[in-house]
Amino acid sequence: MASESGDGNCDAWAARDPSGVLSPYKFNRRAVQSGDVSLKITHCGVCYADVAWTQNRHNDSKYPLVPGHEITGVVTEVGSDVKGFKVGDHVGVGTYVNSCRDCENCNSSLDNHCPKSVYTFNGIDTDGTITKGGYSTHIVVHERYCFKIPDGYPLAKAAPLLCAGITVYTPMMRHNMNQPGKSLGVIGLGGLGHMAVKFGKAFGLKVTVFSTSESKRDEAISVLRADNFVISSNTQQMESLQNSLHFIVDTASGDHPFDPYLSLLKVGGVMAIVCFPSEIKLHPASLNLGARTLSGSLVGGTKDIQEMVNFCAANKIYPEIEIIKIDYINEALTRLVNRDVKYRFVIDIENSFK
Amino acid sequence: MASESGDGNCDAWAARDPSGVLSPYKFNRRAVQSGDVSLKITHCGVCYADVAWTQNRHNDSKYPLVPGHEITGVVTEVGSDVKGFKVGDHVGVGTYVNSCRDCENCNSSLDNHCPKSVYTFNGIDTDGTITKGGYSTHIVVHERYCFKIPDGYPLAKAAPLLCAGITVYTPMMRHNMNQPGKSLGVIGLGGLGHMAVKFGKAFGLKVTVFSTSESKRDEAISVLRADNFVISSNTQQMESLQNSLHFIVDTASGDHPFDPYLSLLKVGGVMAIVCFPSEIKLHPASLNLGARTLSGSLVGGTKDIQEMVNFCAANKIYPEIEIIKIDYINEALTRLVNRDVKYRFVIDIENSFK
Repeated sequence: MASESGDGNCDAWAARDPSGVLSPYKFNRRAVQSGDVSLKITHCGVCYADVAWTQNRHNDSKYPLVPGHEITGVVTEVGSDVKGFKVGDHVGVGTYVNSCRDCENCNSSLDNHCPKSVYTFNGIDTDGTITKGGYSTHIVVHERYCFKIPDGYPLAKAAPLLCAGITVYTPMMRHNMNQPGKSLGVIGLGGLGHMAVKFGKAFGLKVTVFSTSESKRDEAISVLRADNFVISSNTQQMESLQNSLHFIVDTASGDHPFDPYLSLLKVGGVMAIVCFPSEIKLHPASLNLGARTLSGSLVGGTKDIQEMVNFCAANKIYPEIEIIKIDYINEALTRLVNRDVKYRFVIDIENSFK
Repeated sequence: MASESGDGNCDAWAARDPSGVLSPYKFNRRAVQSGDVSLKITHCGVCYADVAWTQNRHNDSKYPLVPGHEITGVVTEVGSDVKGFKVGDHVGVGTYVNSCRDCENCNSSLDNHCPKSVYTFNGIDTDGTITKGGYSTHIVVHERYCFKIPDGYPLAKAAPLLCAGITVYTPMMRHNMNQPGKSLGVIGLGGLGHMAVKFGKAFGLKVTVFSTSESKRDEAISVLRADNFVISSNTQQMESLQNSLHFIVDTASGDHPFDPYLSLLKVGGVMAIVCFPSEIKLHPASLNLGARTLSGSLVGGTKDIQEMVNFCAANKIYPEIEIIKIDYINEALTRLVNRDVKYRFVIDIENSFK
């Protein structure tokens, strides 16, 4: 049971109210059960979800709230029935830590779509506790929600794979975007977008980045190796690309029009959205005239997460990160809101709580 | 060259202005060229497009306008280079009669998506003439846009396959809806919707019809053999079906909400639209939370049309039609606007111009 009194076996930082300001906090994690893995958290990525829920933007925040769902660390204890992990393994935990394990979705390794799936923080677990995330020194999870980080892959860089990475990898694989020579548009160049560019290049795609900010051009081309960079407000450039792309991954966080992007797709093209604008509006002709597809996605299933991590290790795909200590987190969240990060903050948990 | 003077080699009915009222008209069809087939038209289906363009609803109607793009008939003459057809063959012509024949789309038999494709009526053909449709006694087309109607398949019943049939068959095949045992929702029960139900049953799907009209229930179940019939305004019934369907084909002609239908799809489900509401509005969660897909479509390619006609013949799939003479066409178009037809008017051209 999480303690609200400020003592317990786990050090953390929590938000106490919708101001979203985080400060030190102590609570109890459960003891390791037969199927559980306990890990000492070394790193935790900072996702936009951390902002949304610390500030109660969805009106369901349960304080004190410990955010963080891009967790990596080292196994310190395993339950008697655990088969996949041993003490010392490098592992990751993503956006969910429980599910019913017996529905149509769970039976297809799509626990992320289980109606009873439990988010890593601010969720209500099956024992009634409110889940607490990775801005903390350790976590106990059933091994089903734990993923192996291959030897040699830096735990700091692995953290953003668990949400940003899988969020774009899943729709890219589902819509067969791994076809060398085809063309991909990536809308938005934040934590998710920069991973979509990296996967696109690894798949052998010709990648065009669409951004609102000219300041991102140089890095997009030189660091991320995008083939093309377009300012989305440049109508002429946008029109010159009509009917030219096989795929688009839309990671833009704010409200934006859809028709101009759909018109860039070739016949049969697919636009995968991983964004949550307040509404999607489009003209049916944008889909019908080109037999185009608009498709949604939400993180990824357990099988896909492990596959994605292995793919990143095999292909040396590493997120671009800025490592911070936990006492910088309030500034970091402000900078994240202002899109002032290249491209993901990762908290060095191990060295923050010494 | 079409004659505007009222004489020529082809009898027809044409609209003269946006009133959309049709009356007798004569014009010239071109002589058969080396790649052409000439057919004596026996039947022509009445599509909602005929209403839209006779009444200039898209502000691009060119009068006199001869509608009709669900054409069947008998070959009377073939050009010297024609390989696929001979005099006496039963054939059909659909919604397009020309294309560039050399672009990425044409080379994939997707002439329907060629930027230079020419619609069967009210289009501007490569020789500059305004195309005139199937409310006429004969038509001359390149054999590429002509399809074989198998022996024994009634030409009257074959006519609606050329637009209504292919319009729903194409997205159903593209999204792999031909999986026995899976579930399909069909929104709207007009010319397109009733064909989607028939294809769904032929594919072995469990079919639920969504309609605004209780009056369609009995026929949907007894004649079309749908498994379930739901009045879409019945919130309770709609909610009971959440996350239950693998596929939806949306043929509803008017404006309608999308979120309530998307919520009926299972994880990974596909909603194929073949409708043209004035706008599509939806919440991103409707796509993201279930990894759902919204996809457009526009009639079908040349290869798919022949495949679909053959499939209908092999599986004894016949559109439900009401046969009329051409002098009833103005009443028929009014009834079509009022949705008062089960389920497609087909003009008996052969016996209308004697």
